[in-house]
Amino acid sequence: MRIVVLAGGIGGARFLRGLKQAVGPDSEITVIGNTGDDIHLFGLKVCPDLDTVMYTLGGGIHEEQGWGRADESFSVKAEMKAYGVGPEWFGLGDKDFATHIVRTQMLGAGYPLSAVTEALCDRWQPGVRLLPMSDDRVETHVLTDIDGERKAVHFQEYWVRHHATIPAHAIIPVGAETAKPAPGVLEAIAEADVVILPPSNPVVSVGTILAVPGIRRAVAQAAAPVIGLSPIIGGAPVRGMADKVLEAVGVETSAAAVAKHYGSDLLDGWLVDESDAAAVAEVEAAGIPCRAVPLWMTDVDATTAMARAALAFAEAVRTA
Amino acid sequence: MRIVVLAGGIGGARFLRGLKQAVGPDSEITVIGNTGDDIHLFGLKVCPDLDTVMYTLGGGIHEEQGWGRADESFSVKAEMKAYGVGPEWFGLGDKDFATHIVRTQMLGAGYPLSAVTEALCDRWQPGVRLLPMSDDRVETHVLTDIDGERKAVHFQEYWVRHHATIPAHAIIPVGAETAKPAPGVLEAIAEADVVILPPSNPVVSVGTILAVPGIRRAVAQAAAPVIGLSPIIGGAPVRGMADKVLEAVGVETSAAAVAKHYGSDLLDGWLVDESDAAAVAEVEAAGIPCRAVPLWMTDVDATTAMARAALAFAEAVRTA
Repeated sequence: MRIVVLAGGIGGARFLRGLKQAVGPDSEITVIGNTGDDIHLFGLKVCPDLDTVMYTLGGGIHEEQGWGRADESFSVKAEMKAYGVGPEWFGLGDKDFATHIVRTQMLGAGYPLSAVTEALCDRWQPGVRLLPMSDDRVETHVLTDIDGERKAVHFQEYWVRHHATIPAHAIIPVGAETAKPAPGVLEAIAEADVVILPPSNPVVSVGTILAVPGIRRAVAQAAAPVIGLSPIIGGAPVRGMADKVLEAVGVETSAAAVAKHYGSDLLDGWLVDESDAAAVAEVEAAGIPCRAVPLWMTDVDATTAMARAALAFAEAVRTA
Repeated sequence: MRIVVLAGGIGGARFLRGLKQAVGPDSEITVIGNTGDDIHLFGLKVCPDLDTVMYTLGGGIHEEQGWGRADESFSVKAEMKAYGVGPEWFGLGDKDFATHIVRTQMLGAGYPLSAVTEALCDRWQPGVRLLPMSDDRVETHVLTDIDGERKAVHFQEYWVRHHATIPAHAIIPVGAETAKPAPGVLEAIAEADVVILPPSNPVVSVGTILAVPGIRRAVAQAAAPVIGLSPIIGGAPVRGMADKVLEAVGVETSAAAVAKHYGSDLLDGWLVDESDAAAVAEVEAAGIPCRAVPLWMTDVDATTAMARAALAFAEAVRTA
């Protein structure tokens, strides 16, 4: 079975760990990763979402934190501070720095991000094919107010530095309109047996991937069922601050609203948490088949059950 | 008093520590640092000699080793190995990596190496003005035989990887012929009250600095006395493997031969170790005033005495 997953960072990565356990070794999982969160720090190219997927599936992730490396040290960062070179608010450990140095060196040598990601995965062996959504630079900016002035800041500045506590008036995936899908992205979607939107952020993760010209249409027109899992449970994000960016794009923070935001042209099925069973009728009224199942990724087994539910739903949709 | 020192790495840095102690706080020391050893590693610009001077005078050096940082860790390097990215033979610690990241970022932003070095020194406060010999790229290569094949390798590959145990047929400062002295270099030499060639490697350190067009002539024509300290004692290098590169340029490994290699047009005085007192006559016969004094840099006080001897010699030469 060929499975395509459009993934952001922590939520997507944890879902993928369950999905890998849910499927047999003869299944092929292609992950199309969000690169809108990418940022240049200290002259190095940092790809937080790709790395979170790679580290999580490759066994290097800091489990409690959900991002960055386990057993990490912060010697380089302390030196940067001693040199007075910022930003200080982005937590890069020494091991993590190495990944960004290797990536930046390869990009500087002329390799596209997709080739670099493949090379990094040679080490991590994530057990999935990890593709960046695009080899072109896309940077999600947030239109906000800082010190009374309206300005656009990099998503990471909004998210990590300000913890999404400053107003978000608009989310702008800068460069998306001219970006091309990375090699293999459209083909993977076209050849998939199922496409899954995991409980990643629907605006700044999955939404950014879908903003790359050609990807949304490829997903919408895919022969395969497209099944989404709600990142909203009981009117709040499972984790992170998705409510803030949903508000910025005028979408209510509810499982049903997110489904309708994706749209019936895109989704062939939507899973909400069992506590949101009341939303099933609203989603189905919008033309999207919907089921309520447990959606808390409390551990790998719970996540595996979620992945199985998504695959079963896809099968049901396919034969309906 | 305005003092100019043409310095390589460890030998030059240790001499400078003694010189700083020998002179009063109203003296200005300008160090013209060798950049022919510079190398790009992992996409980062590494300047071993400039950093050794900066760390040594700024209190960050690994004292026993003579290069690199004290209390260093090697997390980034271990990750590089895990990624299969080399070379493994160059020892870069985590703290050291930070310096190279900052430098590379600033160079990438368009700052010349001299401005970058000044910015790094803002932190280290070495108590000297540290200038790279040139803002242009100069890379010392060594013509050698590897596996029966004659080829030119980067000096660091010859020196650090092969420990100078492979043949050296020629030393080639690639790029030197078109390099320009960094801003301030020629002015500092012209305005100096004394110019010192410390016991650095006469071929790959001081020799490379002198290979930058304009610098040798500026030193030779300087109004100030030019005093050199022999890096050879008793027919062997004080440290390092200078004998190998002297052989490559056809110079005997002796205190007198190095003086004559520099030449009477350049030197106004040459200090040899007291154990080489027999060489004084030979050096003076070549037209270079010479004295024998203790030249072992066993500790800072011994080095301070060497610096005082050099300054006294300059004074004697000036008034002669």
